[in-house]
Amino acid sequence: MSADTPKSSANAMWGGRFSAGPDAIMQAINASIGFDQRLYAQDIAGSRAHAAMLAAQGILSDKDAEAIREGLLTVLSEIEAGKFVFRVEQEDIHMAVEARLTEIVGEAGKRLHTARSRNDQVAVDFRLWVRDQCDAAITGLEALMRAFLAQAEAGADWVMPGFTHLQTAQPVTWGHHMLAYVEMLARDRSRFIDARKRMNECPLGAAALAGTSFPIDRHMTAQALGFDRPTANSLDSVSDRDFALEFLSASSICAMHLSRFAEELVIWSSAQFRFVRLSDKWTTGSSIMPQKKNPDAAELLRAKLGRILGATVALFTVMKGLALTYSKDMQEDKEQVFDAADTLMLALAAMTGMVSDMQAMVDNLRVAAASGFSTATDLADWLVRELGLPFREAHHVTGTLVAMAETKGCDLPELTLADMQSVYAGIRADVFDVLGVVNSVNSRQSYGGTSPVQVRAQIARWKATLA
Amino acid sequence: MSADTPKSSANAMWGGRFSAGPDAIMQAINASIGFDQRLYAQDIAGSRAHAAMLAAQGILSDKDAEAIREGLLTVLSEIEAGKFVFRVEQEDIHMAVEARLTEIVGEAGKRLHTARSRNDQVAVDFRLWVRDQCDAAITGLEALMRAFLAQAEAGADWVMPGFTHLQTAQPVTWGHHMLAYVEMLARDRSRFIDARKRMNECPLGAAALAGTSFPIDRHMTAQALGFDRPTANSLDSVSDRDFALEFLSASSICAMHLSRFAEELVIWSSAQFRFVRLSDKWTTGSSIMPQKKNPDAAELLRAKLGRILGATVALFTVMKGLALTYSKDMQEDKEQVFDAADTLMLALAAMTGMVSDMQAMVDNLRVAAASGFSTATDLADWLVRELGLPFREAHHVTGTLVAMAETKGCDLPELTLADMQSVYAGIRADVFDVLGVVNSVNSRQSYGGTSPVQVRAQIARWKATLA
Amino acid sequence: MSADTPKSSANAMWGGRFSAGPDAIMQAINASIGFDQRLYAQDIAGSRAHAAMLAAQGILSDKDAEAIREGLLTVLSEIEAGKFVFRVEQEDIHMAVEARLTEIVGEAGKRLHTARSRNDQVAVDFRLWVRDQCDAAITGLEALMRAFLAQAEAGADWVMPGFTHLQTAQPVTWGHHMLAYVEMLARDRSRFIDARKRMNECPLGAAALAGTSFPIDRHMTAQALGFDRPTANSLDSVSDRDFALEFLSASSICAMHLSRFAEELVIWSSAQFRFVRLSDKWTTGSSIMPQKKNPDAAELLRAKLGRILGATVALFTVMKGLALTYSKDMQEDKEQVFDAADTLMLALAAMTGMVSDMQAMVDNLRVAAASGFSTATDLADWLVRELGLPFREAHHVTGTLVAMAETKGCDLPELTLADMQSVYAGIRADVFDVLGVVNSVNSRQSYGGTSPVQVRAQIARWKATLA
Amino acid sequence: MSADTPKSSANAMWGGRFSAGPDAIMQAINASIGFDQRLYAQDIAGSRAHAAMLAAQGILSDKDAEAIREGLLTVLSEIEAGKFVFRVEQEDIHMAVEARLTEIVGEAGKRLHTARSRNDQVAVDFRLWVRDQCDAAITGLEALMRAFLAQAEAGADWVMPGFTHLQTAQPVTWGHHMLAYVEMLARDRSRFIDARKRMNECPLGAAALAGTSFPIDRHMTAQALGFDRPTANSLDSVSDRDFALEFLSASSICAMHLSRFAEELVIWSSAQFRFVRLSDKWTTGSSIMPQKKNPDAAELLRAKLGRILGATVALFTVMKGLALTYSKDMQEDKEQVFDAADTLMLALAAMTGMVSDMQAMVDNLRVAAASGFSTATDLADWLVRELGLPFREAHHVTGTLVAMAETKGCDLPELTLADMQSVYAGIRADVFDVLGVVNSVNSRQSYGGTSPVQVRAQIARWKATLA
Repeated sequence: MSADTPKSSANAMWGGRFSAGPDAIMQAINASIGFDQRLYAQDIAGSRAHAAMLAAQGILSDKDAEAIREGLLTVLSEIEAGKFVFRVEQEDIHMAVEARLTEIVGEAGKRLHTARSRNDQVAVDFRLWVRDQCDAAITGLEALMRAFLAQAEAGADWVMPGFTHLQTAQPVTWGHHMLAYVEMLARDRSRFIDARKRMNECPLGAAALAGTSFPIDRHMTAQALGFDRPTANSLDSVSDRDFALEFLSASSICAMHLSRFAEELVIWSSAQFRFVRLSDKWTTGSSIMPQKKNPDAAELLRAKLGRILGATVALFTVMKGLALTYSKDMQEDKEQVFDAADTLMLALAAMTGMVSDMQAMVDNLRVAAASGFSTATDLADWLVRELGLPFREAHHVTGTLVAMAETKGCDLPELTLADMQSVYAGIRADVFDVLGVVNSVNSRQSYGGTSPVQVRAQIARWKATLA
Repeated sequence: MSADTPKSSANAMWGGRFSAGPDAIMQAINASIGFDQRLYAQDIAGSRAHAAMLAAQGILSDKDAEAIREGLLTVLSEIEAGKFVFRVEQEDIHMAVEARLTEIVGEAGKRLHTARSRNDQVAVDFRLWVRDQCDAAITGLEALMRAFLAQAEAGADWVMPGFTHLQTAQPVTWGHHMLAYVEMLARDRSRFIDARKRMNECPLGAAALAGTSFPIDRHMTAQALGFDRPTANSLDSVSDRDFALEFLSASSICAMHLSRFAEELVIWSSAQFRFVRLSDKWTTGSSIMPQKKNPDAAELLRAKLGRILGATVALFTVMKGLALTYSKDMQEDKEQVFDAADTLMLALAAMTGMVSDMQAMVDNLRVAAASGFSTATDLADWLVRELGLPFREAHHVTGTLVAMAETKGCDLPELTLADMQSVYAGIRADVFDVLGVVNSVNSRQSYGGTSPVQVRAQIARWKATLA
Repeated sequence: MSADTPKSSANAMWGGRFSAGPDAIMQAINASIGFDQRLYAQDIAGSRAHAAMLAAQGILSDKDAEAIREGLLTVLSEIEAGKFVFRVEQEDIHMAVEARLTEIVGEAGKRLHTARSRNDQVAVDFRLWVRDQCDAAITGLEALMRAFLAQAEAGADWVMPGFTHLQTAQPVTWGHHMLAYVEMLARDRSRFIDARKRMNECPLGAAALAGTSFPIDRHMTAQALGFDRPTANSLDSVSDRDFALEFLSASSICAMHLSRFAEELVIWSSAQFRFVRLSDKWTTGSSIMPQKKNPDAAELLRAKLGRILGATVALFTVMKGLALTYSKDMQEDKEQVFDAADTLMLALAAMTGMVSDMQAMVDNLRVAAASGFSTATDLADWLVRELGLPFREAHHVTGTLVAMAETKGCDLPELTLADMQSVYAGIRADVFDVLGVVNSVNSRQSYGGTSPVQVRAQIARWKATLA
Repeated sequence: MSADTPKSSANAMWGGRFSAGPDAIMQAINASIGFDQRLYAQDIAGSRAHAAMLAAQGILSDKDAEAIREGLLTVLSEIEAGKFVFRVEQEDIHMAVEARLTEIVGEAGKRLHTARSRNDQVAVDFRLWVRDQCDAAITGLEALMRAFLAQAEAGADWVMPGFTHLQTAQPVTWGHHMLAYVEMLARDRSRFIDARKRMNECPLGAAALAGTSFPIDRHMTAQALGFDRPTANSLDSVSDRDFALEFLSASSICAMHLSRFAEELVIWSSAQFRFVRLSDKWTTGSSIMPQKKNPDAAELLRAKLGRILGATVALFTVMKGLALTYSKDMQEDKEQVFDAADTLMLALAAMTGMVSDMQAMVDNLRVAAASGFSTATDLADWLVRELGLPFREAHHVTGTLVAMAETKGCDLPELTLADMQSVYAGIRADVFDVLGVVNSVNSRQSYGGTSPVQVRAQIARWKATLA
């Protein structure tokens, strides 16, 4: 081993990172202020609502309440101005805000914690934060739906190959393919709407776990914070993290959808496909291979499901088998949800940008669509529809014709009528109408089908919905 | 190594299981009939609806349609009577049913597959099956909610320790604790209701991927199968497994809830806790240690989250990065969902049984509730409420009194008034009213709090909801 | 809703599946005989070793031991002949075997369970089974490595595009690409070898949890069953499932490797790539689109990671936070490992078959390799090596030349020397030697590089290793 | 909704975070410098080794190489002194270091990247980092093993209840219980040792993907960086993240072990168990309930499996189905591994501290061990061993005696000899020797059993191993 060998950092880390002894280790594992400071706005809003309610119920004097409410606004502006110093000794955002408040308003600050506990305080803070993320996801999804709709509108009748098993199956339209993602994203949006509705109950007033003997008005704080109602069981209120799990689950499904289009973009922008041109904004190049546009953003979006699913598994594992009520294990919820939410919002924004900028290579799509006997199904359907053959028999005739074309090295439309009639005498010249890819897509007029007429109807429906 | 050493089965397996060569391996990995036969009822219902629609639209003669619909009923009864032989060569349930149908009704059977494909057929079959499982979950959840409600009603005023960190925190009521689970299960139920609603769109008529040129009526089949409407994009219809993922996610959250109560049962039935007596039905004994009642069912229920979460991760991983539309990867969806659904329904049934049968050991609960200075918070709140101390100062006084009690080896209610006044002169004799555990729980009358009055109000609300 | 609407099976299931009441539910959730019967050979081997040891230590008479050992062989042959009836009342394989043994040999059978317990019995049974699966995985991996080696040998010098980001980067050789998978599989094999070694300790004799007061010889049973030694702590012996988790983790990594080649096969067999022709054995066709060879087996192999990773997550979740020693939760280990192991072995066999049968489309590979300025790096390296330019400057010159070629609509080798010298005067005619794809791959002679010489050296090394 | 209602941050975020447009979004999703700067020491070590090798092979002048190697040391000291400014435009640590190097040493800096690529550079950097983490894990595990050994030594003969199903099963010794964790941790250590060995191959020199035409010496750089050898396939070298997955898998198993002891600590420190007293360092108190020592650190350690397992699932999902070679998806590897490694090291340190400080409550343990007929198995074994009863018959006799004791409200040792003989006449007075818990544990002398003699032998073995 030469002198270049890097010394293992193991002992240094062990001797260094933890040399300060148990206190430092405990602080490192126990304090949440490093990440829960992100909840400052929610924490202050919750405390302001709590103070107003305490005053309304006569538990706090109006004067104290007013001092507290004003003081909290001062703390808020200090934090937003970057002037607030978070200290790890304060352990969490609740203590940090209350300590500063008491510095500002004195005695009254010590009365704020009446009839509540950090257990219900963190529950309300985090729930408000996750509720905001549902809103952000809904907004982001709508932006992405609009980007797909714009693509669909531009190419409602551009023909491209429809794939099953990544094998050419039947011609479809670009607009139809774009709309498939609109459907997926619409379900995602609907899931976030449902989740938001379900989580929109206020845990404030559950206190440590059992409720309180003070004559508080939980409906008042619930309303002040935009909740539909207070939660109905105080033990559950401080033990529940369903809202976080449901947010994560919905985010995972959404990220899965993004991974599918990302995969398509990677494949479509390969030299072998050339279905789409990604803009420079979303790719990286190479100084010596100028033709090389690496679809970095698409690859990263394909990967993001991993990150979000990982967070989901993490929180499920944490929550498994926890006896009621609050346990410190639950402090592990925040970093997972923060990271998953940030990832999702960034992914939606990036995908919206990429979809908006991408250019379909329309000629390549059309040529690819017309190859590979892609209208064989149309031929079989014609035999059933026009000549009344049973479906299984129509299949047989079609198969024979495709084999004939393959032998001749041509595609189906290039067979002659005589060729066709040699296989099945009843075939008429108008069969050729169904063998072109344009006619093929135009014919698929069943509800939700690929024909431009159907595609445009769906675009109109979605535009109205999103208007 | 002696002659007892078991020969490794590796080579035998390799030489045996796969000796039949590629065909056998391909059949083993490719055929789904081994598990998708479970969809027989859904497959037949879908085909019957399809045939009726084809006839109504003039695509099939009424006579053929009638023959098909009757023939399918025959197939159904054969399967339900156990007379139907599933053969792996038929690959999947769709082929198995159609093949038998054609044996029974002849030529007409070959016309059934007009204007559809196995891609939309499996989509509708599986969706119907998952929809049924949502219904089953809802039914099962309601049964379990009723079991918890019955426990809550019996013990609305039984006092027990409320825990945070598994440390005694404050006294609560048994009824309140039971209701916490009713809240969780109610959210579960609500999630399954939402999921069912979202998935209740009919993919039939999407055909292979692009829709069809036959003049089908997708609204008719959708209605016939109890769907709210047809799906709106044929590509999405055959690519979508969101309904399965959402079912799995909701099931995972539910299983997490069950794991929490299961953990409590295991701890509560330990010799050290003795909070609850599980019935013999849900425990196993030992022939030599008759006092030993192993809470096997509770332990298994604690574990079931693993199984369901595993299935959830499996399907997310499968779906990651799949280009549209149908890919064979998606065949991996069924076994995961089948197993998760079976697990969930069995778990709900077992938990319902256990909850119904369990007996709270009321005396032990009360004694445990009264120990450990569990009413210290009540004392502090009294000082704030009655004497107007700021909360943080009330804490300080209480802490001093608890320390005094600890030194004297007694609990808080056993201190004398003189003791108390030596710490804070203003304390009055009526402070003792809040130091008893019964008074403590009675005082927590905030909405959703632990007092029997609140508990009974919530029980009434839930009974009305479930009526 | 019409008469076609399938009735939800929810109530039927609820009323049916569980109508037999608690006993049936408990049996359904508690009995393991339905799946652990798969351990029969291991169970019998363990009991035979145990009986021999008991006799050797004088705890059992030689006569009883002999009766037991013979009787167990009878049970074994009954099971293997399919004559053994497993009954759910017997709960597990251990009881089933012992009950039948006692029917056969009488009184002696009741002495077999001396100095052991079902806790150490299941631990040894399952460990033997997993050990066998390690052996099977090793065998299967070696078969697959040989299949890749055969492909590598056939095409050690076939040129194909090397991709990064699925964009053409530099020409590589087919043999080199095949060898990349040999490396991955070799690491997999090495992981199973390590896992096997680590798990190869015998838990038999740990008894229920604490060891036993009988003078047993654990080294004797360990040796008889092919273990390296007995485990060293009886509590750990009955609580440990590391061997299963390590097997699952190694299987997940292996399945990930398979998913990568499966993805390549799906992409390579698309109409747009045409890099490879899969044999009919591993694809499925369509009766009307004879050109369509759906790569079903490849798609399923891509998906199998989901299944195995799901099992891994399941068992980790089950084991989380279990207090020592044995808990019934651990019964959830078997089905997960059974399914994962079956999946892995089948996947290895299928991949071996597919790799053996697949045909590279050599001409297509070569043409694809030569397009896209794939030798631009070679040009830059030539400028550094031959003309002494700093690397970053060489990049600049190359970039200018590629842009020139792009403008002219030609590839790099089609530029004239004059063209080249107009950009950098020092360029000489021998630069053209490095611009051909064959020269390019031949030049990459660094250890582990893509040149056929290096590829053949690695093939030779691997053949020697696997010989 | 009142004025207190916090405005949803959704639109602000959308309008704010991403208002800078595509460039900002792309930078946010694409740049890795925010996290990969953690690899600076590894990156610089790799570059120094590379430069030395280039000079030795005559590819770089000695003078340039020396300038580069010195310049890199300057960069290193700048970073370690906190003087280095990381800029997001530089995208990653490789560019950041090279850019600064070139500022320092000029022209020579531009020659450093000869015969390598960022693909092999990041592969070697990350592998070095993960290798260090293996070392750190091994060190941390040994420290924790020593802490458990010290506990085992102190209480080799302290009697406590041994549990199965959290029900008292048989008496065991404290030392034996502690040693069970030593066994688990020793397996963890062994897994990290194996993983380190397997990953200890050097990818440097693989270049972009295909190797290089420069006459580099990969064995020289491998040796310089402490690797056993260079990797053998350049495509695999830049595509492989097995080392990260294996590190994560081993970490997950280790975290699972920690979660089990953490659960025991939470249960043992409950008021109902009182088996152990945790030190103030690892618990948090409450200002008003001084008896309340919340086992926060233990709860967090119980939860950490979630975090590490989540990271494991994340990376598996990312790697699924990636076509060779490098794809940008793989950039998602680092943050997951960084977080998992930090979590593991912190968890090991915290557990080591907690185990060192905890105090067994020896009297409580002994009393608990003696209750619940915990020596019934000893009685049954005595009947077999001393009186020659078949095991199943001995069970029956014991069961009758336990039932008798239960009826009398006493424990087994309190029955009289006459009582015993009334059930089985042959019982002798020396049976009482096996009914005491001390005799019970002393009798379990089988290898790995709970007797103090066995425990001390294992302690000696482990102390020698760790010396």
